[in-house]
Amino acid sequence: SVPPGVLPLCRQLLAWGRAPRQLPGLPLAQCRAFSNNKIMVELDESSGVATMKFKSPPVNSLSLDFLTEFCISLEKLENNRACRGVIITSAVPKIFSSGLDITEMCGKSTEHYAEFWRAVQEMWLRLYSSNMVTVAAVNGSSPAGGCLIALSCDYRIMVENPKFSIGLNEAQLGIVAPFWFKDTFVNVVGHRVAERSLQLGSLHSAPEAHRLGLVDELVPDEKLQEKTGAVMAQWLALPDHARQLTKSMMRKAVLDRLVAHREEDIQNFISFISKESIQKSLRMYMEMLKKKKG
Amino acid sequence: SVPPGVLPLCRQLLAWGRAPRQLPGLPLAQCRAFSNNKIMVELDESSGVATMKFKSPPVNSLSLDFLTEFCISLEKLENNRACRGVIITSAVPKIFSSGLDITEMCGKSTEHYAEFWRAVQEMWLRLYSSNMVTVAAVNGSSPAGGCLIALSCDYRIMVENPKFSIGLNEAQLGIVAPFWFKDTFVNVVGHRVAERSLQLGSLHSAPEAHRLGLVDELVPDEKLQEKTGAVMAQWLALPDHARQLTKSMMRKAVLDRLVAHREEDIQNFISFISKESIQKSLRMYMEMLKKKKG
Amino acid sequence: SVPPGVLPLCRQLLAWGRAPRQLPGLPLAQCRAFSNNKIMVELDESSGVATMKFKSPPVNSLSLDFLTEFCISLEKLENNRACRGVIITSAVPKIFSSGLDITEMCGKSTEHYAEFWRAVQEMWLRLYSSNMVTVAAVNGSSPAGGCLIALSCDYRIMVENPKFSIGLNEAQLGIVAPFWFKDTFVNVVGHRVAERSLQLGSLHSAPEAHRLGLVDELVPDEKLQEKTGAVMAQWLALPDHARQLTKSMMRKAVLDRLVAHREEDIQNFISFISKESIQKSLRMYMEMLKKKKG
Repeated sequence: SVPPGVLPLCRQLLAWGRAPRQLPGLPLAQCRAFSNNKIMVELDESSGVATMKFKSPPVNSLSLDFLTEFCISLEKLENNRACRGVIITSAVPKIFSSGLDITEMCGKSTEHYAEFWRAVQEMWLRLYSSNMVTVAAVNGSSPAGGCLIALSCDYRIMVENPKFSIGLNEAQLGIVAPFWFKDTFVNVVGHRVAERSLQLGSLHSAPEAHRLGLVDELVPDEKLQEKTGAVMAQWLALPDHARQLTKSMMRKAVLDRLVAHREEDIQNFISFISKESIQKSLRMYMEMLKKKKG
Repeated sequence: SVPPGVLPLCRQLLAWGRAPRQLPGLPLAQCRAFSNNKIMVELDESSGVATMKFKSPPVNSLSLDFLTEFCISLEKLENNRACRGVIITSAVPKIFSSGLDITEMCGKSTEHYAEFWRAVQEMWLRLYSSNMVTVAAVNGSSPAGGCLIALSCDYRIMVENPKFSIGLNEAQLGIVAPFWFKDTFVNVVGHRVAERSLQLGSLHSAPEAHRLGLVDELVPDEKLQEKTGAVMAQWLALPDHARQLTKSMMRKAVLDRLVAHREEDIQNFISFISKESIQKSLRMYMEMLKKKKG
Repeated sequence: SVPPGVLPLCRQLLAWGRAPRQLPGLPLAQCRAFSNNKIMVELDESSGVATMKFKSPPVNSLSLDFLTEFCISLEKLENNRACRGVIITSAVPKIFSSGLDITEMCGKSTEHYAEFWRAVQEMWLRLYSSNMVTVAAVNGSSPAGGCLIALSCDYRIMVENPKFSIGLNEAQLGIVAPFWFKDTFVNVVGHRVAERSLQLGSLHSAPEAHRLGLVDELVPDEKLQEKTGAVMAQWLALPDHARQLTKSMMRKAVLDRLVAHREEDIQNFISFISKESIQKSLRMYMEMLKKKKG
């Protein structure tokens, strides 16, 4: 139902730079058609709180389409004065997000890798710098890029199910989390926990994640919505302007670092992911996943 | 009882730069007359430990006069070879210091804002870089600038009364803690705790402050003096020179950052505080405080 | 049994720069003769795990000879494709390493101080940047430079004997830990714990070290070997390449800082250690140690 050409156009717009808000005549309206495809967005105008619910089964993987939709949805909320906070959660049982879609990184063209990586960067730049209060309601497992989304929010509440795990487990797949994943992680858990967890590619169970400070709070599944609402209300009680300036002060150094090295980071990603050895690991990993399902 | 012209003179001296110690002929003796006005200073020459006791009721707010006196008192102790350590505490019941005096930031001239902000910077630069051992004996609540004073010491002991609170709550008032408040805070509690606490403008009860590492130790009121003395003795057991170089190594990066951006920081403060919206919030806040008292 | 001239030659090779691996024709074979002098090295080729056991009684102090041997041993393992991990431990009861050998810093020539300090830097640069998994099995006390060795590993397991202590206690001796000791420490325990511990020159008992995060795990003496092997196996389960790149990403900033300031750091050390007051403290300290023994 998306008119042909719109998706690439939107991607192109995103690709133009750090601050599409300043682009002349961004035709966001055109994007509305697919904006509720992989992510359900609901805005409660009375409270000013939006909910972004990932519903891209089976595992909410971050494909180029998903990331594009994520950025556009966030952009629309950011520009909507009625919206002051956003809750990010999943509509898929047991999984928050499985992280970057490996099929986007396997057997594709250099141009595709560049477009995909720019979309990953864009997602993080927007979410980590969002003026809205962002709360992750982590209601399932959340490896790699899924964990990054949670880490980029202002607050993380996780369902206390010990079967749910979260972490930047890239090293387990033979790949390396980029420096800005690492910077975001260090800002949350500190240097030592990040060093150990990243080197081991650890996936931490919910209780362990809480102990390490990776998530702020654990709640039983049935209390998640209530608790998330209460936390959001607490953060929204602050004057927006002061809170936003404070957030920006805390996060600016790390955001600036990616902005300054964005093209270099894309080239690094391309040359790394294009290596035959890496392609081979990823293919093996995908085979393994298929067999698991079958 | 201060001869007219002395206070502005002393302020001027402070305003001349980072290291008045190197100024030719600093007439500190002239200042002695008012040095015991808002802050009681006692030096025990046998132990080499001075006590600075804030006695500026009702709430030890950091007015321009208070800050000037604080800087001069600290400077005198710093230059006194008989003094190796200083305990900072309050003579006013239930309050350590309420932080920056809002009346100095409300309805005043640009010149006044500049002078005031330079005095706030000066206070922090001197205290955070002090060669003396500095121990905060936090015997009451300590919001905003009061919290900064405690954070700038080498060690913080707080009375375990859960009614006493401490924190950088600027965001609650619609204002933003400057970057060097933030840097000092991050150096004590780490990035994540600082990010959350600053965005929420949290005032933490004594037990919570201890749990977060914002204060090092809690003691019952009646043990405060004894414990503070014991901690001071422990720190003074180290050779001064090695301890001072170590302290400087730990704090230099953060101190240098303000020194490098001092004038810019003053201009930022002036343009922020001069905004009609900010002036309005501060007036409302003062009204609220007055009604509370009344 | 070392042919005359070989030891200075090897030192010279080490002194040539950061990356002897790239030197043409490094005659490491020549060094083999003394490589098992102060440090026992055993490589289990089936597991790919080497053990470096300090056996330089009475206290495994880091003399120039010890450091030279340490660097050469590490280099040989690093270049041996059969070796993927190294366990560092002590063959001397109750002591892991007592740190830098004070006799190398006392009453020697400027040239000697420079050579010694370059060897200390070299040891840290190689260990902290090692591509191998490095696990410290701390089976005794570990002050100052001994603590640095432990801090530079990927993981620290300590025998839970409360009589064993560990810490950067330089300030107690009237000297100052160099900035890269401090950086390494901050990366492990965070800024606040490092600031307090360095200023006080604290030696932490094993349980306290564990509480502060200075060591990762405590075990009874008789379980040390088993536990160390299990931890090593866990780290070796990761693909080397991804783990190595991740480690390098975490440690690069701190390593680069010393590389950029290496000569300056040597000059600082020489001018500090050459001071008569420092020489006097060190002589007194050595006298005290002699009397203790006697």
